[in-house]
Amino acid sequence: MRSQGQAAWEVLLPAAAAPARRRGRALQEALREAVRSGRLAAGTRMPSTRALAGDLGVSRGLVTEAYEQLTAEGYLRSDRGAGTWVGDAARSRHGGTHARWAGASAPEVRVDFRPGTPDLSLFPRSAWSAAQRAVLARLPHPALGYPDPRGLPELRQALAAMLTRRRGVVADPERLVVCSGVAQASTLLGFVLRARGLAAVGIEDPGSPEHGRLFASTGLDTVWLPLDEEGLRPEPLAASGVRAVVVTPSHQFPSGISWSAERRAALLDWARAVDGYVLEDDYDGDFRYDRAPVGALQGLDPERVVYAGSVSKSLAPGLRLGWTLVPEALLAEVVERKRTMDLGNPVLDQAVLAEFVTRGAYDRQLRHCQRAYRERRDALLSALAEHLPGTVVSGIAAGLHVIARVPGHYGPPERFLARAAEAGVALRPLEEYGTARPGDGEVRLVIGYAHLAPTVVSDGIRRVAEAVGRE
Amino acid sequence: MRSQGQAAWEVLLPAAAAPARRRGRALQEALREAVRSGRLAAGTRMPSTRALAGDLGVSRGLVTEAYEQLTAEGYLRSDRGAGTWVGDAARSRHGGTHARWAGASAPEVRVDFRPGTPDLSLFPRSAWSAAQRAVLARLPHPALGYPDPRGLPELRQALAAMLTRRRGVVADPERLVVCSGVAQASTLLGFVLRARGLAAVGIEDPGSPEHGRLFASTGLDTVWLPLDEEGLRPEPLAASGVRAVVVTPSHQFPSGISWSAERRAALLDWARAVDGYVLEDDYDGDFRYDRAPVGALQGLDPERVVYAGSVSKSLAPGLRLGWTLVPEALLAEVVERKRTMDLGNPVLDQAVLAEFVTRGAYDRQLRHCQRAYRERRDALLSALAEHLPGTVVSGIAAGLHVIARVPGHYGPPERFLARAAEAGVALRPLEEYGTARPGDGEVRLVIGYAHLAPTVVSDGIRRVAEAVGRE
Repeated sequence: MRSQGQAAWEVLLPAAAAPARRRGRALQEALREAVRSGRLAAGTRMPSTRALAGDLGVSRGLVTEAYEQLTAEGYLRSDRGAGTWVGDAARSRHGGTHARWAGASAPEVRVDFRPGTPDLSLFPRSAWSAAQRAVLARLPHPALGYPDPRGLPELRQALAAMLTRRRGVVADPERLVVCSGVAQASTLLGFVLRARGLAAVGIEDPGSPEHGRLFASTGLDTVWLPLDEEGLRPEPLAASGVRAVVVTPSHQFPSGISWSAERRAALLDWARAVDGYVLEDDYDGDFRYDRAPVGALQGLDPERVVYAGSVSKSLAPGLRLGWTLVPEALLAEVVERKRTMDLGNPVLDQAVLAEFVTRGAYDRQLRHCQRAYRERRDALLSALAEHLPGTVVSGIAAGLHVIARVPGHYGPPERFLARAAEAGVALRPLEEYGTARPGDGEVRLVIGYAHLAPTVVSDGIRRVAEAVGRE
Repeated sequence: MRSQGQAAWEVLLPAAAAPARRRGRALQEALREAVRSGRLAAGTRMPSTRALAGDLGVSRGLVTEAYEQLTAEGYLRSDRGAGTWVGDAARSRHGGTHARWAGASAPEVRVDFRPGTPDLSLFPRSAWSAAQRAVLARLPHPALGYPDPRGLPELRQALAAMLTRRRGVVADPERLVVCSGVAQASTLLGFVLRARGLAAVGIEDPGSPEHGRLFASTGLDTVWLPLDEEGLRPEPLAASGVRAVVVTPSHQFPSGISWSAERRAALLDWARAVDGYVLEDDYDGDFRYDRAPVGALQGLDPERVVYAGSVSKSLAPGLRLGWTLVPEALLAEVVERKRTMDLGNPVLDQAVLAEFVTRGAYDRQLRHCQRAYRERRDALLSALAEHLPGTVVSGIAAGLHVIARVPGHYGPPERFLARAAEAGVALRPLEEYGTARPGDGEVRLVIGYAHLAPTVVSDGIRRVAEAVGRE
């Protein structure tokens, strides 16, 4: 069984693989370094010696010895009977951020259903490594100089072809700007729109509050615009006075709906009427399970839609690599912003992704993730049907999360969430993503499942059911 | 002999290495692709068939055949007798930027003395490749997730130790923010200062106009502040009313002076008196040839000085990897800006650099570059003494460029520069870096030499002397 917290112990695996005579010392060094570097945050509860020895495949004696040694040195702290914890002597000001970085959550979180992360163990390490090697062997020296702020020409061509094929966009390589992801695409566009005199951007309600934070950093206010089951409602949009919106029409975040054709057309009519722009955040357009992919909105009007996507869900967020397709009228300003922000993305990473896309490895990776995520989604649906019958699930056709509406008879939302948390299951209510507070007694959850193995998904839902069941 | 323009032909080398029976076709394909992708910009003059055949180690017949085929297809354009050029049929909107990216300068530039680029052929490809492989083998899965916007803890620790040792800074890893380079450090600081109500930043005169452009993108005006041979003159600084300045005290750009101890102290006194900040752009502090390194200004007052550096001169600008040390009072705002700009730097690159620094490979690379650049500097000084006697050279103790003052008897500046350009030598006059227009008849040049082999350096100066000598 795998949980978020346990992933941190993986830093000890190389030590466990050391030759027998050096294994004990290697383990102690790795543990010390993990504490010193913040990978193991102060306050993290260490597993039992038996459990860790089992996970690492080493003798329990070695682990006990390592715990004792590091406790003596102050790296660990042992509360007799209560277990062993990471001490705070080694570092003074780390804390929260490091813990988040390491994925080492508070010890009580055993299953984390909060959405937003893909399964990082699916990252194709050896294929990526091979592409890195190939790139360093062939890249001409001048390519290592200051980059084109728009991105490496070979990557822009490869991405344009891939996006045209997969997402139905109109992708001219000359209009494609390589950037660090959808967040940077949002900030780039925000600065450009602000410089043109816009004061606010509309965001979907429910939607991602992060969009609002990013635009706020560029000096733009955000206005929540209500959705219904077809997409943005036209009247509030027209009445809002904004001239730019951010939308997720292929698989709306978080509701999971796919916008209707009518609403897509209405949004573009609106954009043309107000001389405005639409930012299409295609954050999980690559993952679709039961039906044909929904083409991107941008294909309908590339002069009004700024399209943005990234490798964060398909490969890894840590690569910080994405793209944006920009209308001609905004292109020069977006490129100049990109230039002053960072002069352009790192060249080697861009060349590696170009290699990856061109050789078909990117398509293979998407198919691989797709299979894994569908299996997890099916595990989630089965577990909900078995353990929390009556729950209505939507947004299941695509993406890395679903919306679950749990009937009121499982208890009021506050109690439901508190009980789940006590049982070590992190859940995020839909209310955190917008302004709606229905008060009908139902619990509405945004459940992310893609980063969890099927057995962990089932176990998590079972824990919730047991916790809310006992009164 | 190697020149900037020639480096572009390296993209053809893999084709030249193809088996004999496929070599002709591979060469044509590579050439076609180079034109299509913009690596060979429209208007680039192709080498003679004899020269290219020699460079690539293939028969001249193959090159002639490739030229004829691609001319027939419209990729190349042949002006009988005058040579062969890259045509403009294949692409419509590329042009300037691509030409810059590829280092493929206008056909008439044979030796390019413009400063700013290191020798990209010194990039340690195999060591970097080995570090990439090691990182992908050991990095725990959670490290591939969304990064800490401040940077990877292991890199911040490695850089802090390295900078403390090499540059005499006060480098707390908690105050170090990994960023994409000095340009991004400037933009980050600019946004933070603008949000605090500052309206303008002072820049050195002479200095780098790029600083002004970067701050302008954050809404800040720039004020030129005069230098003398010791550093910023105190009275104009005090009278300017600015509360922030950007300086290059270790090896001032472009004048090459090292600020005196008095002026360093006076600047910090000023910063404390006005509650202001100093951005120290340590763009080439790693390269020092004849005397002990000058420690960074930041070491004297880490609460008033924001220190910024990068790997652009030591490894490659294309890596887009740098660092900034930030006073406690500004830290949270800088980190939040970094977060909204790009969420943090790519994780794999950071881990590779950490590996590189920790294993001593970074120090080795600096020593290697140092030796190569000193040899080139010496070649430049010899060539100036031989071919343009009477020239006074300064700023020679460090860095990748010098200032050369050529006496008036070689002709007025306009004629001097025009003749050099006609002879295929690109030179940049000091006047382009500030407001001074001395009018004393001397030619003041900022000569970058680090990217040129010693024989190219000598050849370039000889060409200039011949060109300005014939009346």
